[in-house]
Amino acid sequence: MMRYPLLLHTILERAHRLFPGKEIVSRDFSGMFRYTYGEFYERVCRLANVLQKMGIKRGDRVATLAWNNHRHLELYFAVPCTGAVLHMVNLRLFPEQIAYVLNHAEDRVIFIDQDLIPIVEGIRGQIKTLEHFIIMTDAGNLPESSLKPLDSYESLLRQSSPVYDFPTDLDEWSPAAMCYTTATTGDPKGVMYSHRALYLHSLMSGMVDTFAVSEKDVVMPVVPMFHVNAWGLPYTSTLVGAKQVLPGMRPDPRTLCQLIQAEKVTVTAGVPTIWMECFKLLEDGSYDVSSLNRIISGGAAVPRVFIEAYEKKLGIPVINAYGMTETTPLVLLSRPKSYMKDWPEERVYARRAKQGLYVPGLEIKVVDENGNEVPWDGQTMGELHLRGPWITEEYYREPVLTGEAMRNGWFKTQDIVTIDEEGYVYICDRSRDLIKSGGEWISSVDLENNIMAHPAVAEAAVIAMPHAKWQERPLACVALKEEFRGKVTAEDILQFLRGRVAKWWLPDRVEFIDEVPRTSVGKFNKKALRHKFFSELFN
Amino acid sequence: MMRYPLLLHTILERAHRLFPGKEIVSRDFSGMFRYTYGEFYERVCRLANVLQKMGIKRGDRVATLAWNNHRHLELYFAVPCTGAVLHMVNLRLFPEQIAYVLNHAEDRVIFIDQDLIPIVEGIRGQIKTLEHFIIMTDAGNLPESSLKPLDSYESLLRQSSPVYDFPTDLDEWSPAAMCYTTATTGDPKGVMYSHRALYLHSLMSGMVDTFAVSEKDVVMPVVPMFHVNAWGLPYTSTLVGAKQVLPGMRPDPRTLCQLIQAEKVTVTAGVPTIWMECFKLLEDGSYDVSSLNRIISGGAAVPRVFIEAYEKKLGIPVINAYGMTETTPLVLLSRPKSYMKDWPEERVYARRAKQGLYVPGLEIKVVDENGNEVPWDGQTMGELHLRGPWITEEYYREPVLTGEAMRNGWFKTQDIVTIDEEGYVYICDRSRDLIKSGGEWISSVDLENNIMAHPAVAEAAVIAMPHAKWQERPLACVALKEEFRGKVTAEDILQFLRGRVAKWWLPDRVEFIDEVPRTSVGKFNKKALRHKFFSELFN
Repeated sequence: MMRYPLLLHTILERAHRLFPGKEIVSRDFSGMFRYTYGEFYERVCRLANVLQKMGIKRGDRVATLAWNNHRHLELYFAVPCTGAVLHMVNLRLFPEQIAYVLNHAEDRVIFIDQDLIPIVEGIRGQIKTLEHFIIMTDAGNLPESSLKPLDSYESLLRQSSPVYDFPTDLDEWSPAAMCYTTATTGDPKGVMYSHRALYLHSLMSGMVDTFAVSEKDVVMPVVPMFHVNAWGLPYTSTLVGAKQVLPGMRPDPRTLCQLIQAEKVTVTAGVPTIWMECFKLLEDGSYDVSSLNRIISGGAAVPRVFIEAYEKKLGIPVINAYGMTETTPLVLLSRPKSYMKDWPEERVYARRAKQGLYVPGLEIKVVDENGNEVPWDGQTMGELHLRGPWITEEYYREPVLTGEAMRNGWFKTQDIVTIDEEGYVYICDRSRDLIKSGGEWISSVDLENNIMAHPAVAEAAVIAMPHAKWQERPLACVALKEEFRGKVTAEDILQFLRGRVAKWWLPDRVEFIDEVPRTSVGKFNKKALRHKFFSELFN
Repeated sequence: MMRYPLLLHTILERAHRLFPGKEIVSRDFSGMFRYTYGEFYERVCRLANVLQKMGIKRGDRVATLAWNNHRHLELYFAVPCTGAVLHMVNLRLFPEQIAYVLNHAEDRVIFIDQDLIPIVEGIRGQIKTLEHFIIMTDAGNLPESSLKPLDSYESLLRQSSPVYDFPTDLDEWSPAAMCYTTATTGDPKGVMYSHRALYLHSLMSGMVDTFAVSEKDVVMPVVPMFHVNAWGLPYTSTLVGAKQVLPGMRPDPRTLCQLIQAEKVTVTAGVPTIWMECFKLLEDGSYDVSSLNRIISGGAAVPRVFIEAYEKKLGIPVINAYGMTETTPLVLLSRPKSYMKDWPEERVYARRAKQGLYVPGLEIKVVDENGNEVPWDGQTMGELHLRGPWITEEYYREPVLTGEAMRNGWFKTQDIVTIDEEGYVYICDRSRDLIKSGGEWISSVDLENNIMAHPAVAEAAVIAMPHAKWQERPLACVALKEEFRGKVTAEDILQFLRGRVAKWWLPDRVEFIDEVPRTSVGKFNKKALRHKFFSELFN
């Protein structure tokens, strides 16, 4: 068979040739911007010429600090298809972390959305390798800035040729893109995505049993484009010629619902907190979201009550998925198997609330501390290990951390999971979030889900508190829905949990808070909670 | 990203681990045989041990001469997953061709279905490299035979261990399987399928916009397993854990309809002649085929009248697809694009009757004699050239033929096609079947489709006849439906064609025949017709 390299170029060309009239819609700073794949392609070519004129060579890193918009999508293709590497910087990192990743990646150029200029200005003194700052706007909107040399994206594009001959001789193993983990301890760690990995991940994401992205879809990634390739959706959507809807800067639940209605979005994807917030808006019928036929939720499991509510009240299936920065990202996805249609609803929802089955093309195993596979009983906890063509085998320029993350060719996720007799994986906890009580493990995630099933609870996070006798004991931080505040007691919560969890799992303390703090990608920030309650211990 | 090789082993393991209870149903010589992926896996392991005991090493070729059944499926995995190469011999080749391909491939062992023993016995004297003959049956059914040494499949399996540790260190470029083309001229040519190509083809075939094979499907490949990997369906079905129904020896239309009804088949695939024959049975409602939600047709285009009839009378979409032995095989597939739902029905059917859009992951171009791309106007004919990871770059041990088939890294299909402004490819003809009349090309396929639109016509084949003035002129061979025989004249046919095709396309002669002869894979055998009518010229 042909020595044909698996390159992102093949994806770009297909949309250009077969679907030139299909639309890309972008929520820009000045309103809605619409164009076609045909026009998109021409601008990607112009951008490739801009990069060439700047002297960007194969392997050079090009950074973006940007929201989900059409210019970011153009960079998603122009940078890797010329052979350079797209470094999507997480704009929610602390400024000193942003400086760290820009320096660590040795980015030569950075493309910045106009509202994010102050972030870069603030760390200008710490940045070592950037030679060029490009603001993703037209010349008229180019602000005064201390960043030099400064250019406007649109001016550069206008000055460039709309024709570019993309190389087809790149090595498929060459890096196409990179992201850094949102480190909760230590510095962020870099992960390089090869052309090969992204090509394979794109084929896989178009499969019926995974994301099932098709030409008929209207795809709106709410997951940020600075976070793990926006779960690969920009690449998969382009490969199959799906209409794309990019929701722009800080989209709030109302904006998202409006976009779904206006653009007839069929599939959207993001962290569960977003779907919980949107639910309130959708429940009262203010928006017509009948076009939406699935929601993909990742980053944390959607509690079962929400899956049920979405399906029964709105008729929209919510699909739990699981992946990480290190895995491109898709690893697990929770769809029921065909024969489960005859199962009692209860049993099916119990599976769907898990992270699910590993997707085609990968291998997984769940191992105990000695590296032996645990039984598939849905009870025994073990660490999830992964192997496959879109799983990382190293952290960029971090040989020591790489060594710690790998074991005999498998990537150790540090996620503690169970796997049941049907192969559905359930993430009990990050290994550091597990509560070790009297030699046994308590899953903080499990406790949270049970607390969140209480009708008065908006959200809950459980952390481990040091304990003299038991080593660790759970503390539950509970945010009540507004109308229940002051009306529900800690004892009410504990009473609700009795019978739902083992007696020794019951939290030693229940603390009411206004809301659970979030990390930069919208997950529960347990580090902040631990910091808050640990500090109390020592005051 | 990991240096993880793309191997068939990953496909086998996924079915085994995630879908051990899903069914494989096989129409065996003694009736229906049913078992699960769990049991299948154990037998694949036993078979791998059998191969090892025989001394089959990496790269060795293992032949099969067999129908679509469970033992053949076991060989589909056991042979390549141990590192050997599965050579699926087309049992409809002439005996001397079968001897040729066995010798050319240097097969060491052959697995034979019990009814096919006489074929091998007949060519025993010509076979040079075979060391072992295994009949795919149990010891009780092992017939007397001149083939030595002879063994029964089931005895060998019973004597072997059900545990096998498949290698995961194979090179993904190493050959997994091979097929020979059904040469209409010259000797059959061998094509080697790598693990990498089959893995990629399997991911792609599970995509919504291609075959869309999913765990929910019940897949019945009518396309023989000795023909281009049965279009990859056994591999894709196993990857996603779909139930498989293997229709066994010489399935007739009645058997196929019975299987669809009994096993609740959701998707089936084969050449158009099969679907034309099944239509008669289905039209009168004798079978409940309501489970069937699509039919994939390849090898030749299903005439538009049949697509319409299947859809309007039976509610079953028929999807045209295109590929070749050299392409693993899927290249083109004809599904309407989403925005065509607003088009007039007429225009949509016109697209669906074409071979369609190229599938994700490949590249195509349509070129004139100078290698320049022809306009996408649906009119200009050119040769279809292909590039991609599951397209061959050589004929096995045939450097001269390989040189002729390739051009600048592209594979030349020898198929003359048009491509329209939407990117839908239409196969006008094999280059040798085109009729060159007065310096212009006439598409024999186009003429056939127009003749077959006549309500009295069962089937038609058009060939080129030498002509003193015009170089070539079309001759139409027409088989009438039984009830119209003797009642329709050549002039009736020509009258029907006037206004449907250009005047100079009208056949010079219309000959009535009982049926169009078929090739070994069920396509129209124009070579036989040419032979028949050319002979007349010289008598």
